[in-house]
Amino acid sequence: MCDIRRVLIANRGEIALRIARACRVAGVESVGIYSQADAASAHLLLVDQAVCIGPAASAQSYLDIERVIRVAILTGADAIHPGYGFLSENADFAAAVEQAGLVLIGPDAAVMRLMGDKIAAKQQMHRSGVPCLPGSDDALPEDTQAIHAIADNIGYPLIIKAANGGGGRGMRVVHDRTGLEAAVVAAQEEAGRAFGKRTVYAERYLQHPRHIEVQILADRAGNAVWLGMRDCSIQRRHQKLVEESPPVGISPEAMRNVGERCVQACLDMGYVGAGTFEFLYEDDTFSFIEMNTRVQVEHPVTEMVTGMDIVREQILIAMGRPLSMTQADINLRGHAIECRITAEDPDTFQPMPGRVETWRPPGGPGIRVDTQLYDGYTIPPQYDSLIAKIIAHGRDRADAMACMRAALEEMTIEGVATTAAFHRRLMDDPAFRKGAVSIHHLEKSMKRDDGHA
Amino acid sequence: MCDIRRVLIANRGEIALRIARACRVAGVESVGIYSQADAASAHLLLVDQAVCIGPAASAQSYLDIERVIRVAILTGADAIHPGYGFLSENADFAAAVEQAGLVLIGPDAAVMRLMGDKIAAKQQMHRSGVPCLPGSDDALPEDTQAIHAIADNIGYPLIIKAANGGGGRGMRVVHDRTGLEAAVVAAQEEAGRAFGKRTVYAERYLQHPRHIEVQILADRAGNAVWLGMRDCSIQRRHQKLVEESPPVGISPEAMRNVGERCVQACLDMGYVGAGTFEFLYEDDTFSFIEMNTRVQVEHPVTEMVTGMDIVREQILIAMGRPLSMTQADINLRGHAIECRITAEDPDTFQPMPGRVETWRPPGGPGIRVDTQLYDGYTIPPQYDSLIAKIIAHGRDRADAMACMRAALEEMTIEGVATTAAFHRRLMDDPAFRKGAVSIHHLEKSMKRDDGHA
Repeated sequence: MCDIRRVLIANRGEIALRIARACRVAGVESVGIYSQADAASAHLLLVDQAVCIGPAASAQSYLDIERVIRVAILTGADAIHPGYGFLSENADFAAAVEQAGLVLIGPDAAVMRLMGDKIAAKQQMHRSGVPCLPGSDDALPEDTQAIHAIADNIGYPLIIKAANGGGGRGMRVVHDRTGLEAAVVAAQEEAGRAFGKRTVYAERYLQHPRHIEVQILADRAGNAVWLGMRDCSIQRRHQKLVEESPPVGISPEAMRNVGERCVQACLDMGYVGAGTFEFLYEDDTFSFIEMNTRVQVEHPVTEMVTGMDIVREQILIAMGRPLSMTQADINLRGHAIECRITAEDPDTFQPMPGRVETWRPPGGPGIRVDTQLYDGYTIPPQYDSLIAKIIAHGRDRADAMACMRAALEEMTIEGVATTAAFHRRLMDDPAFRKGAVSIHHLEKSMKRDDGHA
Repeated sequence: MCDIRRVLIANRGEIALRIARACRVAGVESVGIYSQADAASAHLLLVDQAVCIGPAASAQSYLDIERVIRVAILTGADAIHPGYGFLSENADFAAAVEQAGLVLIGPDAAVMRLMGDKIAAKQQMHRSGVPCLPGSDDALPEDTQAIHAIADNIGYPLIIKAANGGGGRGMRVVHDRTGLEAAVVAAQEEAGRAFGKRTVYAERYLQHPRHIEVQILADRAGNAVWLGMRDCSIQRRHQKLVEESPPVGISPEAMRNVGERCVQACLDMGYVGAGTFEFLYEDDTFSFIEMNTRVQVEHPVTEMVTGMDIVREQILIAMGRPLSMTQADINLRGHAIECRITAEDPDTFQPMPGRVETWRPPGGPGIRVDTQLYDGYTIPPQYDSLIAKIIAHGRDRADAMACMRAALEEMTIEGVATTAAFHRRLMDDPAFRKGAVSIHHLEKSMKRDDGHA
């Protein structure tokens, strides 16, 4: 047990506010940091101390490991919550925090490094019985004949992926033997440029998968639980736009089986904190793709159906407290949907930062809004364009969708364009309403709307 | 089954907004009415049509039965939701609505009249096995000897109450025989002035009761359910300030027993709609005091623990739909607390209307805010000073209180005084934290603070 009294929040936007709230409820003080572009951030009113960390450029502020740690020490913080994005999955940061004698609210650097290496992560999952896609299970060799042998064994279509990648970069889909060699070279070069490492691996390519993920919590005492699943298949260019829990049309038994494997994997690798196992799901089969070793943007849908506070639990876990719940305490109630509202054109998704003249959040039973907005807030152009997460909870999916539609109509924002209109249209999309669409659904239907396909 | 397509909302403030939201989620149109003092009401942006009903004085606007019904007809509404207060328990209004061929979202005039007569209501409860206080069970006679005989039979201390009263008027506590006759006369005179009827009755006076109430829903098809209980013992001058669900320290069996009796009473009297059975609770015993035939201010705490939407359910019931749930569907999760924030001095409770310069509602997991406030809203002085209901839900009572305390600290309102500081103090009150305080707790502890006792 370690006594955390003061948490530095190494993030901005809605998640910084979310973490500041969790600190208050958990009874710990908090320190907010902000770049020069973020001096008017809403969460700075909620923290016990606010410190300007540097200029607007993230590399000199939110991503500057040395500065973040120095501010933590200077302000008397004993722990750092990294949120999502920025330094949240940076194992070097995790190691530096530990070295400075501070507590990182998250897993340790070794586990973070393990999960950051997609090949090593997959091997770890194999050992714990977490289902994975058939694939090379190791870095592709240099020898082209050996590559062809591996590819033939996997079967076509297959996908080449960067071992240290993410976000769709360093990926190539290969439909038959003729395209294999060029795809491997292209993926290696892209991976080298994007992530500094050319290592790639291969696995079967699924054509219509859904993105399903498992939220877990694990403490230092060897307890771990899974908090249901989320369906995050509504994506555009590998960015999730809408998430829900529980997923439609997957049996509780199938979910429990995979959930329990994820719990086992946490225990096997000594995982501590909140984390998410991401899967592709097709033909009633889950296939692990990667683990995120941090809180996710979409964690509120899980909170709405389970009644748990994931961020507060992260803080308590970091203090060395045992989990406040057992698996038996985790019962899902109803259905929750989250829409990520961004300051973007609702048709082209071009960022549209600017000054918010009027902001009236929606409300009522089952509605939660996580946002940094307020009347007169100017959205800085330097960062991610997420400005509000609207979360709707209902007794079932139809109910949650009715609440979400009403909330999207009620929400008033003047001064900047947002994607609210996109989300309103999505709530009327027959395929989405039916549920269980693939990760390609959105881009296919948007192309149809444009008359391109 | 009747098809309600358009609901006139015969109310103002946060409950008008709450009803407008429920209409949207239920897929029906709504008409908002407003007095000249309420032209800037937030709910007017959410309704399909807004109509000015008259001057600020309630008698010429929100309480003017003829005007309200005329506007409903002129705007094509087929139903009226009365909210709470104003015309919500006025049986003449209910009768007039029905006569105009409109649907009142609530029970019919006969049941409303029955429950408005406290003596008749108590007799009805007796018949259905709902526990009541020992008392005269009928109007007190004129004959003083007969009164004494009744009083001796009840025992002292006892209380004299107006048969058509409420809000503490027409009430007298009598500690022994010597004070009886004067108290009866005083109560009769006060009742006559306040309610137009001198009829009074007597019942045992409990010295340290809690206020516990049962929320019910009943449909036209003869189905009724109870949705748990609320403890509303934190009161000041008969005004509830804080409510919670479930009550502390009452066994589930004891609650179920009384809940089921309330359901039976609904079926026996043909009650239709949402309603609340109010009880005093002392020495493990429930004693019925009255029934409210409308939605209550504190309904959100029940919604938070049950996951039900009571106002939407009211609309569906009024359409003639069967209840969307059975008793087996009603499971309580966690604990919810509501604090009523009023525009009043937090020490003296003197109303302090004015212009709200800045309003930043609290948020985060488990927090719901029902409010009519927005930046720049001017609180009119003519009406009730309730401006926001902060509702906090947690896994247990301690958790809900921690969330409430953080929410009260986060809430920012500039320009008017509010009772938020009172509520923050209450969250630290040892007796309240322990739970199960009597309805006199607050006034006693406030007197102590003032050095008066």
